[in-house]
Amino acid sequence: MKNTYGHSVSVTLFGESHGEYIGAVIDGLAPGVEINHDYIAHKLTLRRPAGKISTPRQEQDAYKIVSGVVNGRTTGTPVTILIPNENVKSGDYTAMQTVARPSHADYTADCKYHGYQDSRGGGHFSGRITAALVAAGAICQYTLEQKGIVIGTHVKRCGGVADRDFADLRADIEALNELTFAVLDDTAAEAMQAAIVAAAEEGDSVGGVLETAVIGLPAGVGEPWFDTMESLLSHMMFSIPAVKGIEFGSGFALADMRGSEDNDPFLLEDGVVATATNHSGGINGGITNGMPVIFRTAVKPTPTIFKPQQTVDFAGMSETVLQPMGRHDPAIVHRARVVQDAATALVLCDALALRYGTDWLK
Amino acid sequence: MKNTYGHSVSVTLFGESHGEYIGAVIDGLAPGVEINHDYIAHKLTLRRPAGKISTPRQEQDAYKIVSGVVNGRTTGTPVTILIPNENVKSGDYTAMQTVARPSHADYTADCKYHGYQDSRGGGHFSGRITAALVAAGAICQYTLEQKGIVIGTHVKRCGGVADRDFADLRADIEALNELTFAVLDDTAAEAMQAAIVAAAEEGDSVGGVLETAVIGLPAGVGEPWFDTMESLLSHMMFSIPAVKGIEFGSGFALADMRGSEDNDPFLLEDGVVATATNHSGGINGGITNGMPVIFRTAVKPTPTIFKPQQTVDFAGMSETVLQPMGRHDPAIVHRARVVQDAATALVLCDALALRYGTDWLK
Amino acid sequence: MKNTYGHSVSVTLFGESHGEYIGAVIDGLAPGVEINHDYIAHKLTLRRPAGKISTPRQEQDAYKIVSGVVNGRTTGTPVTILIPNENVKSGDYTAMQTVARPSHADYTADCKYHGYQDSRGGGHFSGRITAALVAAGAICQYTLEQKGIVIGTHVKRCGGVADRDFADLRADIEALNELTFAVLDDTAAEAMQAAIVAAAEEGDSVGGVLETAVIGLPAGVGEPWFDTMESLLSHMMFSIPAVKGIEFGSGFALADMRGSEDNDPFLLEDGVVATATNHSGGINGGITNGMPVIFRTAVKPTPTIFKPQQTVDFAGMSETVLQPMGRHDPAIVHRARVVQDAATALVLCDALALRYGTDWLK
Amino acid sequence: MKNTYGHSVSVTLFGESHGEYIGAVIDGLAPGVEINHDYIAHKLTLRRPAGKISTPRQEQDAYKIVSGVVNGRTTGTPVTILIPNENVKSGDYTAMQTVARPSHADYTADCKYHGYQDSRGGGHFSGRITAALVAAGAICQYTLEQKGIVIGTHVKRCGGVADRDFADLRADIEALNELTFAVLDDTAAEAMQAAIVAAAEEGDSVGGVLETAVIGLPAGVGEPWFDTMESLLSHMMFSIPAVKGIEFGSGFALADMRGSEDNDPFLLEDGVVATATNHSGGINGGITNGMPVIFRTAVKPTPTIFKPQQTVDFAGMSETVLQPMGRHDPAIVHRARVVQDAATALVLCDALALRYGTDWLK
Repeated sequence: MKNTYGHSVSVTLFGESHGEYIGAVIDGLAPGVEINHDYIAHKLTLRRPAGKISTPRQEQDAYKIVSGVVNGRTTGTPVTILIPNENVKSGDYTAMQTVARPSHADYTADCKYHGYQDSRGGGHFSGRITAALVAAGAICQYTLEQKGIVIGTHVKRCGGVADRDFADLRADIEALNELTFAVLDDTAAEAMQAAIVAAAEEGDSVGGVLETAVIGLPAGVGEPWFDTMESLLSHMMFSIPAVKGIEFGSGFALADMRGSEDNDPFLLEDGVVATATNHSGGINGGITNGMPVIFRTAVKPTPTIFKPQQTVDFAGMSETVLQPMGRHDPAIVHRARVVQDAATALVLCDALALRYGTDWLK
Repeated sequence: MKNTYGHSVSVTLFGESHGEYIGAVIDGLAPGVEINHDYIAHKLTLRRPAGKISTPRQEQDAYKIVSGVVNGRTTGTPVTILIPNENVKSGDYTAMQTVARPSHADYTADCKYHGYQDSRGGGHFSGRITAALVAAGAICQYTLEQKGIVIGTHVKRCGGVADRDFADLRADIEALNELTFAVLDDTAAEAMQAAIVAAAEEGDSVGGVLETAVIGLPAGVGEPWFDTMESLLSHMMFSIPAVKGIEFGSGFALADMRGSEDNDPFLLEDGVVATATNHSGGINGGITNGMPVIFRTAVKPTPTIFKPQQTVDFAGMSETVLQPMGRHDPAIVHRARVVQDAATALVLCDALALRYGTDWLK
Repeated sequence: MKNTYGHSVSVTLFGESHGEYIGAVIDGLAPGVEINHDYIAHKLTLRRPAGKISTPRQEQDAYKIVSGVVNGRTTGTPVTILIPNENVKSGDYTAMQTVARPSHADYTADCKYHGYQDSRGGGHFSGRITAALVAAGAICQYTLEQKGIVIGTHVKRCGGVADRDFADLRADIEALNELTFAVLDDTAAEAMQAAIVAAAEEGDSVGGVLETAVIGLPAGVGEPWFDTMESLLSHMMFSIPAVKGIEFGSGFALADMRGSEDNDPFLLEDGVVATATNHSGGINGGITNGMPVIFRTAVKPTPTIFKPQQTVDFAGMSETVLQPMGRHDPAIVHRARVVQDAATALVLCDALALRYGTDWLK
Repeated sequence: MKNTYGHSVSVTLFGESHGEYIGAVIDGLAPGVEINHDYIAHKLTLRRPAGKISTPRQEQDAYKIVSGVVNGRTTGTPVTILIPNENVKSGDYTAMQTVARPSHADYTADCKYHGYQDSRGGGHFSGRITAALVAAGAICQYTLEQKGIVIGTHVKRCGGVADRDFADLRADIEALNELTFAVLDDTAAEAMQAAIVAAAEEGDSVGGVLETAVIGLPAGVGEPWFDTMESLLSHMMFSIPAVKGIEFGSGFALADMRGSEDNDPFLLEDGVVATATNHSGGINGGITNGMPVIFRTAVKPTPTIFKPQQTVDFAGMSETVLQPMGRHDPAIVHRARVVQDAATALVLCDALALRYGTDWLK
């Protein structure tokens, strides 16, 4: 399967940056799930660029749901979301971009699609497509919240600045879900934004780290081999453009730990099995253990920068120098966090429906 | 799907640590693929424990192939590999282990399987099962080599010691594939082994980082969404017990880079598009770009240690202290590298067969 | 997976009879495939109701393609087709139909969707959805034709009248693909239409048998177990509303044959292996043998009839009598044949892409 | 996917007629499912050839389960069944059969596997493989029975003789499940066996029709598109060698009915929705309606007959005459009925686990 993820609850993504619509089809959602349009619109707003730290391209993201919803609730059949691309010029496509932007997908798209790819604005590879993923994921995320499963993501690191660690997870998540720039520590937030602006002023860009927490997941979800909970989440997260790494719990820091440091002692908390620490990120042997699921992704700097760069023209097979022009983000990590929440929600809805049946999320 | 990975070339894993057989079914391999038993046996030997840095449990791994191979070549139908568990006592299973070993899957297995899981020696969660994965992957890896696609993994970090970076990739990979302890720098190798022995003497364990390189992959393999090459590889790698993180190319280091540092300039090398640097790890937009695919995994310390640990008995729901006894590894990172090679080969065979058809690997 | 079919080339269907749009996403089509709008429109016209033998509901089927096509050719990324439902009243949905129409999906939809299903006009179960399947399949069918693979279907039986058998397959298929009422024998065509009109005048409906032939398929496509060519085709055909049976080659007639009658002798025809007869319908052991693939489906009479029928109101759990009113077809078999062609094309594109790679259909 | 069927509960088949083992891996079965060895052995006995109406090849089918079962119950992890091929000569394979047996898979296997296929005794295409399918399905079938879901199949037609229709379904199924030759009417049973013997004496073979009934299925299982209950069942049934047709409820007879005859009136029976007739075979709109699921398959005559037949040698590409020798069945329809039960059970376990969760069958 290609642009479809999931077995019981699945999402199919379509569209190009400069096409008529981008969108998503979500299938397998339980019937009777409430569609909260304020919630979806809020998530789309959080994803949209804003201010000096983002691209000036403005989209209303005036999504509409054209199937699968009646009287504000899912019917149980495919839910189709359309988001028009308003801020583009229509008209025939006349000149393909054949000068490969470094660390973009221009060249690899050509290797795969042999010159037929839509290269306008990144085409199907554009971060723009994540608006559809956010809308689809928002439906799932809201549904999970009704079952007490709550997801939140902060920018853990950006431009050399670190946010504080998660503390009171529930309170932190609630705070994050209201923030446009999702950083728990205000001083860190300001420093990160300053770093982004500084990079932008030099025609450059910065990357960062996103940290996601999920609370309220039941223990016993995931498979020992191949469909471990880490496998499912990582499979999805590496679909988010610019994500180049993921780690669960203490992740790469485990490499320098000893077992006696890493192991999470089990204990009883109000009669429920819990762990004293959570180096495992809520997952043992691929299966949730009832503790918060915690993971971090590495988001690379936006590859489009306004500096001359060495590259090739793959049509003529000649070397050349590229100096990009246009509308781009000096950082996307703060926008990608909404995508990461949405993507997480999609994975969890599928895993929970497989585990507990198609009506469980009703 | 659960214990099966892959769409065109797939692998199904089965077995338990103390069962009669562990094994794997590989389906969809091109017909006519040569089975090189020396190659498979060599990989199994590299995975097997040896010396003071490993568990004293010794298995011959006397695998046999009971279907899908005639006259030393694949028929094109399912190849079934059986590996007997010789070094176990047979007989009925009488007492389930209900005291959860911290950071093991004992408790989560119980949440999922409600007391019916085979808990002897870790059951289906045991690292023992990776012997079957290695045998299956070795067939794929050998096949890829015939097409010029070569995979190698070294222990990049262990016990606080770092190996040198990859230099001449082809030569490094060839060297690694002969080494029992896959470290490029001899001094680092000795220091790592000393660190493992030191941990073992304290009843403790260490983790590490594995770095894998793949050379010779064609450009244009992978999908823009959901089945990105990173998604496919990470999905598989998180099935390897103890892997808790993965990063491609410069990975988490990208978080602190600027775009101008991260971007890989394209150039022409002997008329072929290449990049001057490889921060992208050979993948742009989810699709291979023809450069080496590079990724690193974080391997946590073996959770079984010989120190008293706080935990719960999940049958009686009471807190208790556990001091494990038995046969265990103070480190598995050096053994896991063979598993990582094998797992990589399985992912690539599937992706290549989907891209170029079922006969491509013949 | 639910409303998605296929692994390499896949189709996702969405929409309801009275929703804003119905549509389909086709993913995995080779890049560079030509979109022939005349061809698609022609197929949609053939599916649309016409004259006294069909429902008076008229739809323009003014489809548009909103992603995945640039300059008239596929890009290789998802192709999304939207078809507006023009001939419906918009507005909130206020009263669900809880009186189950016999042999319709009203009651089973309620069992599955618990009252949240869209019951207007059959909702997602409506034959209307097949317009999207036809549009998607038409793209595939046209593509296959460029590779010499040609599909055609005739109404083999309807209202007690039988069409003649296929004779010169290529000529017959070419003729059928121009006919609105796809019957090879003109006298039979007239008799069938008379039978439909006669049933309609009594407020009743008739069923029929569709026979499909595919010529030009390469030998060696399909799998021995589970994904036999018969499995793949039947899986898809039973998605076409009203199909209740399928048979390949001589099908049920084989039950009364002896092996000596049934067996298809192999021979050489212009140096190519062929068979003297084709009782096998072009498939041996689940795999194409290079002969025409032939299958027939049983299409039940339209369940909506204008006669009083015994049924239940599943909301109040009471027995009642239903006399349907509205716009319905006295027969759908002649319209379903276009759907059967389209559905066949989708299955074949997927099977061929899995077998020969994603570029094969280019 | 190839030799694997199912998403939540899946089965993978492997082995060849003359290999060391045939077998199956069943994954995703609920933990705690009882393994009833008498039940499995009984099903294998029913499948095994016996008497003059079958091949003289005798196999003990001394299956063993080598993973996934502890203390007589499933653990929830993959269950692997091995069945040794005892009645074959081991040793290298020296001469491939290149003379294609008409209506066998010899030639198509060669088209797919390019000469590498195991052609001894039909290899992976052999009906022998169904022993593994029966063993796997028997576990599922027994489990379903514990939930009140009962499956039974009779030979509805064979050698020109028809069995009586199902009457009291539960009693009929119970009777059938004890019969070696599963025919409800004794006189018909004798006449069928006489017809088989008569064909055998002429070196010929006969086909037949199998009719399966499932009672006790909940209403609301199946999908409107692509994974209709008919799609799932037909996908599986066309994997059974020799099946060339399938019909649900009144099937092909519907082609000549009017809607007023075909429609199944709904009524209330002890407060439960039922239908007065069952032309729909228990499925409306792809979804179970709570009535018995009824389907029939067409089983072609055994293609191996002891008469000279025109064919080709595909190695030398020359025409030739083949007169088969060896051990073969003059009919397989009476043996295939056990396979059809088993195959049905596998499909239902998967569909129910997807619908109600992985623990539902516990």
